[in-house]
Amino acid sequence: MPITKPSDDALPRLALTLGDPSGVGPEVVAGVWANPQVHAICRPVVVGGVEVMTRAIQLRKVQACVAPAAGEELARSSPDVVPCLEPPAIGGALPGEAAYRAIDLATRLVIEGDADGVVTAPISKANLQAAGYHYPGHTELLAEKCGVSDFAMMLYLPPGPTTRCPHGLGVVHTTLHTALRSVFDLLSVDAIAAKCRLADNAMRAFGAARPRVAVAALNPHAGEEGLFGEEEQTLIRPAVERAAAEGLDVVGPLPVDTLMGRAAGGEFDAVVAMYHDQGHIALKLLGMHAAVNVTLGLPIVRTSVAHGTAPDLAWQGVAETDGMVAAIEAAARLAARQKNRTARRSG
Amino acid sequence: MPITKPSDDALPRLALTLGDPSGVGPEVVAGVWANPQVHAICRPVVVGGVEVMTRAIQLRKVQACVAPAAGEELARSSPDVVPCLEPPAIGGALPGEAAYRAIDLATRLVIEGDADGVVTAPISKANLQAAGYHYPGHTELLAEKCGVSDFAMMLYLPPGPTTRCPHGLGVVHTTLHTALRSVFDLLSVDAIAAKCRLADNAMRAFGAARPRVAVAALNPHAGEEGLFGEEEQTLIRPAVERAAAEGLDVVGPLPVDTLMGRAAGGEFDAVVAMYHDQGHIALKLLGMHAAVNVTLGLPIVRTSVAHGTAPDLAWQGVAETDGMVAAIEAAARLAARQKNRTARRSG
Repeated sequence: MPITKPSDDALPRLALTLGDPSGVGPEVVAGVWANPQVHAICRPVVVGGVEVMTRAIQLRKVQACVAPAAGEELARSSPDVVPCLEPPAIGGALPGEAAYRAIDLATRLVIEGDADGVVTAPISKANLQAAGYHYPGHTELLAEKCGVSDFAMMLYLPPGPTTRCPHGLGVVHTTLHTALRSVFDLLSVDAIAAKCRLADNAMRAFGAARPRVAVAALNPHAGEEGLFGEEEQTLIRPAVERAAAEGLDVVGPLPVDTLMGRAAGGEFDAVVAMYHDQGHIALKLLGMHAAVNVTLGLPIVRTSVAHGTAPDLAWQGVAETDGMVAAIEAAARLAARQKNRTARRSG
Repeated sequence: MPITKPSDDALPRLALTLGDPSGVGPEVVAGVWANPQVHAICRPVVVGGVEVMTRAIQLRKVQACVAPAAGEELARSSPDVVPCLEPPAIGGALPGEAAYRAIDLATRLVIEGDADGVVTAPISKANLQAAGYHYPGHTELLAEKCGVSDFAMMLYLPPGPTTRCPHGLGVVHTTLHTALRSVFDLLSVDAIAAKCRLADNAMRAFGAARPRVAVAALNPHAGEEGLFGEEEQTLIRPAVERAAAEGLDVVGPLPVDTLMGRAAGGEFDAVVAMYHDQGHIALKLLGMHAAVNVTLGLPIVRTSVAHGTAPDLAWQGVAETDGMVAAIEAAARLAARQKNRTARRSG
C-alpha cells in the first residue's frame, strides 16, 4: 500500500481511529471534519468502518463524502472528502473487534511510514475484553504493538484559560491501569527517573526549551519526613536526584495537593504522578474537555481524547468535539517536530 | 471563669486560636478583625499570646486594641476590642507548646459552654513534635481531647464561583494522615458507612435538606469490575448499600477523576473520599483560599483554614485572609444551628 510521500514541508498525515462504534468516537471524528482549523494543520484520514463513518457524517450533517480509501487515495483528504480506510473483515464484527482492528491498522500505517501519527477515539474496555483482547487500555496495547517497555501515559492540557503554563501542562503517570494496592511494588527509582526523562522530552516537543518537571509525592504531605510513609525517601528523592544529575530541571517529591495548583499556576511544565488518579483528578478538573492523552516512549506519535465512550450520549450528535480537536492539534505538533528531526538527521 | 451567657438569639461566640506563632496564623486572625462581616455573624475572641496578637494587629494596621481577657471580658469583643485569652505560661515557650496550649484552652472553653465553636489557625507539625506533642494534625488532637473515635476531616468549599453546589461542596476523608500503604488496612465497611453519615449530617448543617452524597472509588476506573482492585466490590459498595438502607441519598463507588468534576458541577453536595490526597487534590484546585477544614463527629464545632503555616510568607502582613473569613463563616453557621437545636431540645 505505497502512498505518495509528501515533501517534508507538507502537513502531517494523521490516522484517526473511530474507537468503539457504539460510543461517541465516530461522531466526534465526524464533527471535527467541519472544522477548518483541523485541515489547516494536518491531512486527516479515518481508520474504521466506512458504514459507521458515513452514518456519523450524516448525523453531524457534515458536508463531506466518505471515500473508501486504499493506497494513494488516502492523500485525497480535504474538507469535502473523508478518506476512510476500513480494516479487513469488520462488517458484522463485535464492536471491540472493530475497535481493535482499527488501532492495529492505524499503528501499522505509521510504522510503515504511510502516516505520521495516530489519534484515537475512545474504546470500551468491556467491549475489547468481550472480543478477546485483554488490554487494560490503549496505552498498553500500543506499547505492545510497538514493542516498547519504557513508555508512559501523559495527560496534556494545552495552553488555555485554566492554566498559566505557556507550553501547556503535562502530567506523566508512573503507574497507570492497576489496583492502587499494586502501585507500591511497581514504583522504583528506575521507573520514576525514566518518567522524568519522558516528561522532559515530551514538553520540549510542546515548545518548552528547558522543561521544569516536578515529581509528586506518593504519601500525604510528601510523607511528612517519614511519618506518613517512606517512599519519598527511598524511591522518589533518589529518582529526582538521578534525573537532576542527568541535567534535567526537576524537583520533588512535592505534596501533590498543592503541587497541582502550583503547576497550573505556571510554576512547572510537567508533573510526574505516581498513580492514575493522582494525575487524572487534577487534569480532569482543570480541563475535562480540553485534555489530551499522549503516549510517551513509542516510536510513533499517538494522542487521544481524554474522555471515554460515553455510551449514554452516543449517536445523538451532541458530543463535544473540543477534546478531539485538541488531540489532533497535539499530534500534528508532535508529528511535525518528528518530521523535522528526521529531515535534519538525513539532511 | 464564668462568662456571661448570651441569650439564644445572640451571635455565636467563636474562639480563634492563633496557631503556630512563627506562621501566618496571627496575622491572618488580625487581618479578619477589620472585616465588618466577621463581627456581623459572630463574637470572636482570640486564644493565644497577647504579645503575639498585639504585634500581628500592629503589622496589619488594624484599628483595634488587644485586651488581655479573663472571665466576662471575653464578651467585650467588637471591631475596636480584641479580647485575647492567653493560655498559662506560654511566654518563652516553644512555638509548638504555645500552639498546643491555645488549642487545648479553646477546646475547653467550648466544652464548658463559654464559647460556641473553635476556629483554628495553622499549626506546624514539626514544631508540635519538637514540643513533645505527637499528633499527625489538629483533627486527631481534637478528637482525642473530645474523647471521640468516630470523626472525620471534611474539606468544605462554600458556595462560590468555582462550584455550582448551592450549599457548597464537602469532601469527607475516610482515612487522613497516614501512609498511602496503610489505607487498605484502615478501610472497612463500617468506616466508610460512618463517613457517609457524617457527610450527610454536615451538609444538612450547611443547608442541604437532603444531601446527595457520592462515594469515591479507591482504584482507577472504580476498579473496572475487579480488573484493577476489588475494594469497590468488597468494601465500598456494601458500605454504600448500608448507608442507603439507612435512608441516606448516597451513590457509589464512582471513579474519582470524573466524580470531582461532577460534584463541582452541582450533581452532589458531598463526596466521601478514601484517602487524603484524593480529596485534597480536588478541593485545593477548586478553591485554594476559600476551602475550610471542618472536623466532623466532635461534640463541639470546629473549623480551620485549609492552608498551612506558610513560614516563608509569615510576618510580612500580606497573607490572604479569605480562608480565615470562610472558616469563621462556616463555624458561625454550624454553631448557630447547634444552638438552635439545643434551644429546641430544652424548649
